[in-house]
Amino acid sequence: MSADQPKRRTAAGRTAARTSVPAARARKRPRAKQAAANLTRIEILKSAAGAFRRLGFHGATVEEIAAVLGMKKGNLYYYFKTKEEILFACHQYSLDRLLEVLEKVEQDDRPPDQKLRQLIVAFVHTILDDLHGTALFLDLEALTASHLRQAIARRDEFDRGVRRVIQQGVDWGTFAPHVDPKLVSFALLGAVNWIPRWYNPSGPSSSQEIADHFAAYLVNGLR
Amino acid sequence: MSADQPKRRTAAGRTAARTSVPAARARKRPRAKQAAANLTRIEILKSAAGAFRRLGFHGATVEEIAAVLGMKKGNLYYYFKTKEEILFACHQYSLDRLLEVLEKVEQDDRPPDQKLRQLIVAFVHTILDDLHGTALFLDLEALTASHLRQAIARRDEFDRGVRRVIQQGVDWGTFAPHVDPKLVSFALLGAVNWIPRWYNPSGPSSSQEIADHFAAYLVNGLR
Repeated sequence: MSADQPKRRTAAGRTAARTSVPAARARKRPRAKQAAANLTRIEILKSAAGAFRRLGFHGATVEEIAAVLGMKKGNLYYYFKTKEEILFACHQYSLDRLLEVLEKVEQDDRPPDQKLRQLIVAFVHTILDDLHGTALFLDLEALTASHLRQAIARRDEFDRGVRRVIQQGVDWGTFAPHVDPKLVSFALLGAVNWIPRWYNPSGPSSSQEIADHFAAYLVNGLR
Repeated sequence: MSADQPKRRTAAGRTAARTSVPAARARKRPRAKQAAANLTRIEILKSAAGAFRRLGFHGATVEEIAAVLGMKKGNLYYYFKTKEEILFACHQYSLDRLLEVLEKVEQDDRPPDQKLRQLIVAFVHTILDDLHGTALFLDLEALTASHLRQAIARRDEFDRGVRRVIQQGVDWGTFAPHVDPKLVSFALLGAVNWIPRWYNPSGPSSSQEIADHFAAYLVNGLR
């Protein structure tokens, strides 16, 4: 993977791209109805994420995802045609959050260690709160080839952002000169990506505690 | 997961347990033939690990694993009856290596930061060199229920060992007093477990460079 500058897209541009299919349907509907539909869409993603966490992507059925929401399977199909489409929308949703945070952090003029801290905290919260500790990053192989390419491209965009912040910390002297931004970003993102493998929603640590502890540990190792 | 002391087994005891089925067959064979059979067994595991990395557990076929070794599928069945049995043997093989290192490290009287460093380096080498960067820890769901229980129990044994070493570092004052050994061990093991997701055998970093960089970063964060 190269550390060169990616073509940057704005959060608004991404959201428009992400919602292109529902947007086509939305043109026929008044704004209030569309807002309700978007809310429902997000509720479906959250319910699906919970089911994927409990049962795995292959184990969770569309019936169960619908049942948790008190919906009929047929109504759910209005929003998503296949289970894979739901999984992809979960990826897009969490990547939207992450890339929004990256954009905000990079425009900020805080020192690089604080920027990195913010990115790690946001990443942990995205995994644990937005999508209930779902192993999104482990279900990649269930995506279609085209969706996989899109998800990987946007994840790479986030990874490169993390790497740029680490490089900035090395350049500024905030982080040690021997730090390899590429290897360290792999370690750091791996630590966070692994959380769904051990996280227990009824366990002793809150998502805030996990986010704070991970951020402190993973930033401190760079000094 | 509790941090209490597990029932400890010796490396010799583990190896005996691991090889119980082949050992039963071995009684009928002279020692030289048995040594050759063990070597073949390990060659099969390494070939299988490479195929699992390239094609995934579900994508790799027993035919391909045999073909790489210049074996017939039927000969391979002499050693392993199913592909799942090969996967389980890969797990056992790498867990044997890890638990041997843990035993050696814990008997040693080095300071805790050096012990932790040794454990991380050994863990990286086990994933990258012994099993060619195979996502062993990601293929757990392909194991039978009984094999999954055994693999998880032994992985937990290693995880608890890592946690004990971190706790010792906190007790000795080598590591910062606010360090939570449980959360930190999750972060640290996650960083290493994630390596197969990005590792490229023809990439620029050798396994030694990755091991050294990860160990330096992940130990330094605890000070």
